[in-house]
Amino acid sequence: MLADTDAANNSAIEFWFDFSSPYSYLAAEKIDALAANHQRIVHWRPILLGAIFQVTNAVPLVQLPLKGDYSVRDFARSARFLGLPFTMPAKFPLPTQQAARAYYWLCDHDVARAHDFARALFRALFVHDRDISDLAVVCDVAASMGLDADTLSFAVAQPEVKARLKNETDAAILKGVFGAPFFRVDDESFWGVDRLPQLEQWLATGGF
Amino acid sequence: MLADTDAANNSAIEFWFDFSSPYSYLAAEKIDALAANHQRIVHWRPILLGAIFQVTNAVPLVQLPLKGDYSVRDFARSARFLGLPFTMPAKFPLPTQQAARAYYWLCDHDVARAHDFARALFRALFVHDRDISDLAVVCDVAASMGLDADTLSFAVAQPEVKARLKNETDAAILKGVFGAPFFRVDDESFWGVDRLPQLEQWLATGGF
Repeated sequence: MLADTDAANNSAIEFWFDFSSPYSYLAAEKIDALAANHQRIVHWRPILLGAIFQVTNAVPLVQLPLKGDYSVRDFARSARFLGLPFTMPAKFPLPTQQAARAYYWLCDHDVARAHDFARALFRALFVHDRDISDLAVVCDVAASMGLDADTLSFAVAQPEVKARLKNETDAAILKGVFGAPFFRVDDESFWGVDRLPQLEQWLATGGF
Repeated sequence: MLADTDAANNSAIEFWFDFSSPYSYLAAEKIDALAANHQRIVHWRPILLGAIFQVTNAVPLVQLPLKGDYSVRDFARSARFLGLPFTMPAKFPLPTQQAARAYYWLCDHDVARAHDFARALFRALFVHDRDISDLAVVCDVAASMGLDADTLSFAVAQPEVKARLKNETDAAILKGVFGAPFFRVDDESFWGVDRLPQLEQWLATGGF
């Protein structure tokens, strides 16, 4: 099991994402392998983009004039470009508190499994068009991995798990996170799945 | 001389940009060679992002909370990633009407030279930190290429040249252009210098 608590470890890549972000889904499929190629571990940090957009006065991409229509097309094309399956969800964007809280609860017990769980949640939404804003769906995804759905269902309702998500989102804003996916390594920030080539060059060259 | 007037020619790449857009500068350094590798020509179309942002209710990148600071860093890093020189201009963003009008005037006489002129204007701003909102600077860049500065200075003040820029900007909005650089080929749109790899794959494979 990889340690996920040593935030002071400069060699780790921090990876912030919202479960309702299509570009975050694409990044989630790539980042662990990319990092492993350069002997780095990744700290996954689900956050709530809605809370961040309140601070930055931003609006969900698909609600913007012209850009919204383009974005839906770009989600699918970017997925094809990266060789990944993609279905535009019927319900979008959608609340992701339950999914994010479930992630943090599992992360505190088993980081590697939590990464698998996060990818399974992303695929449930962006490949199988399942409504992961529904706790029953989150539990079903967990159960399909052999996790105990009742324990998870109880855990995500606990005040400390709710506070964890809020604190992680607040901490992300303090680190300059304004969108998702967002990466930080060696004090350098990278925003967007389209910055993975730059992030990879950064890791390969020790900064450029 | 390449024809630049056959808008119905599906094989051409349309390239919209604003002279005050750093990512447009980076794209301008790459697009002609990329297109030539795939036997395509490029129709360069300077536009006014300010007019487009009024329609789409958008704000210049550098004025956005958090995203603004990141962007300035990303401009320079993206330039290094692409192997291009970059200096953040002291005056930024800045009006680009004069530069854009001068481009269209020259474009109607000599397309190939107009592309060189556009690249020279971009480098004046983003490499040598010259204030290209000043017509005298635009004329000086033109003169350094052997163009007649007096003729250009007279031309950009003519109503038909002013109308041309307005019409091109209006036409861009009708085609869904909401930012810069923006590309369109075979009815497919690509936004951002970071979409050049997808554009190149599109050209190489005939769509994907």
